[in-house]
Amino acid sequence: MSVTSKSIHVKNIPHAVPQVEDFETISEEINIEDENLLKENELLIELQYVSVDPYLRGRLQTFHNNVVQTLGIAKVISSKNKNFNKDDTVTGVFPWKQYSVTDGKTIQPATKDLIAGNKHIDKTLWLSTLGMTGMTAYQGLFEVGKCEEKENVLVSGAAGAVGMVVGQLAKKVKNCHVVGIAGTNEKCQHLIKDLSFDSALNYKDYNNNSKLLQADLKKAFPNGIDLYFDNTGGFITESVWDLLNKNARVLICGQIANYNHINNIPKIDDFLFKLIYKHIRVEGFIVYDFKNHEEFYKNMLKWVNEKLLVSKETIVEGFDNIPKAFIGLFSGENTGKMVVDCRIKK
Amino acid sequence: MSVTSKSIHVKNIPHAVPQVEDFETISEEINIEDENLLKENELLIELQYVSVDPYLRGRLQTFHNNVVQTLGIAKVISSKNKNFNKDDTVTGVFPWKQYSVTDGKTIQPATKDLIAGNKHIDKTLWLSTLGMTGMTAYQGLFEVGKCEEKENVLVSGAAGAVGMVVGQLAKKVKNCHVVGIAGTNEKCQHLIKDLSFDSALNYKDYNNNSKLLQADLKKAFPNGIDLYFDNTGGFITESVWDLLNKNARVLICGQIANYNHINNIPKIDDFLFKLIYKHIRVEGFIVYDFKNHEEFYKNMLKWVNEKLLVSKETIVEGFDNIPKAFIGLFSGENTGKMVVDCRIKK
Repeated sequence: MSVTSKSIHVKNIPHAVPQVEDFETISEEINIEDENLLKENELLIELQYVSVDPYLRGRLQTFHNNVVQTLGIAKVISSKNKNFNKDDTVTGVFPWKQYSVTDGKTIQPATKDLIAGNKHIDKTLWLSTLGMTGMTAYQGLFEVGKCEEKENVLVSGAAGAVGMVVGQLAKKVKNCHVVGIAGTNEKCQHLIKDLSFDSALNYKDYNNNSKLLQADLKKAFPNGIDLYFDNTGGFITESVWDLLNKNARVLICGQIANYNHINNIPKIDDFLFKLIYKHIRVEGFIVYDFKNHEEFYKNMLKWVNEKLLVSKETIVEGFDNIPKAFIGLFSGENTGKMVVDCRIKK
Repeated sequence: MSVTSKSIHVKNIPHAVPQVEDFETISEEINIEDENLLKENELLIELQYVSVDPYLRGRLQTFHNNVVQTLGIAKVISSKNKNFNKDDTVTGVFPWKQYSVTDGKTIQPATKDLIAGNKHIDKTLWLSTLGMTGMTAYQGLFEVGKCEEKENVLVSGAAGAVGMVVGQLAKKVKNCHVVGIAGTNEKCQHLIKDLSFDSALNYKDYNNNSKLLQADLKKAFPNGIDLYFDNTGGFITESVWDLLNKNARVLICGQIANYNHINNIPKIDDFLFKLIYKHIRVEGFIVYDFKNHEEFYKNMLKWVNEKLLVSKETIVEGFDNIPKAFIGLFSGENTGKMVVDCRIKK
């Protein structure tokens, strides 16, 4: 039986917001019953559901003049691969193509049996709550963010695929105080009424003014913010810094506010974006929080006594010169530690 | 015996770089042999060494019209406190005052016996390598930064009190590749020759141009940077972001480049500064690094099956609408996960 199989390619690499015209649909005929269609180990799949996600914006150029590939759900039509049988439902990375021949290597092995064993669950959940975005929420909140019971949690992009799971996990699993930021009043109502968020703010009410948003966030968080799960970046994120509590964690998951800007991204946005792909951690700290004094003195005294560590001091003489010594720090007059010897000469 | 005891007060709160005139020296007469000088539990101390540190810049206003207090080393002259005896050498927070009466509460109890037991060590080391700045280096590199063997470590403010210890610990204890940034060629030579740094750059050679500095840092780190210990902020820090490796850590310890600026601090510098006092962690992450799939499916399936988690999807119909659905993400057309149902109607 010969059928038409359409596929979607990237024709132009967009410079700002992508347009429908940047994509092209190509049709080909395929005989899905041809016995020679599949080589050993191959299988024929029919695409059922496709996941579209913001991260794809940054990957479009890799598909230039080629078919796009993203996560999806497919049904196995025929198989010469011992791991898959006709009618299996599978998830994995698939081309945007109605029928594809694949060797199965991009299929996620973990989900096939889970899907078969949970037929009552809507299939699309394997792309959302039980898919990559749900996994991102779980990883960010629990593994990276180490969310604790009853913390104060803010989620930007809260009505998005990741945000909706983050907020619910924080609220329903960790009993947190959870506030979401979204882009319409309907979404805000949805967060509160359907997803049990404590409150929600519509960022479009604030006209890109981080001070105004900050004032309302302050009301929404009388005890400050312990964990900020950031899916958006931009002025929303800027409004958060002054509301963070001691030992707060800021999880940079997405920066959709800037995905379509090529130029003129503020330095701080550019910086935050860079943290994501390399899983970079930036952490401020202060010695007053350090408690392992015993370990410190034990190790450091050993290294000092072994003369492993060299100590350099810039010693300024005389009590009266204390202010001068202090001021000299800012023009780099010290090498090593600046100390004033203020012993009284007798 | 009546002696003159001088003390140093903050007369004016400086707006930019502090000046000697912002401080005032006041003299008083004190009879250090007067039997009524000390009440029960009090002791008389003579100040020997004073530590001056950049953090004090931010605290000056708290000492307005009052005597400054910082870390120092003092000798006990007389004592009615059972924990301290005449001639003990103690460290702690002391007023900038030649003779002070204190109840001993600001004395650090841990160091008194350590100092007595290590008389061969120069006393000033208790303010440097074995003092607060050494502790800061130790905490930042090992506890917060989790520095591993043979990592690539960059230290700004490397010839300062904290930086010199950080670099040596990374090099001599963890066998790292260590590069320092300092402000004179002499300091750079000192880092390499005396402190065993692998190389050093003089930031004043780069005229505040982060791209130029970045180019030389790239040469100094052929394998990228795993750990950046930041004591300065400013253009030095800006030059580092693009050179960081996967799972890099950036430790924000000091931002001396901005301590004397009240206005016009770039947003990113202001942001980094804020991380310090509250010990805030900002961490980017990406789901491809997540490995606990088994735990994820076990917990999430349970919560989905219990209907604890609500899943919201925006389902767009039809294969041809995949690009439109994708583009809609950037104008917030989705609530929850955006999925395209592209099943072929038969």
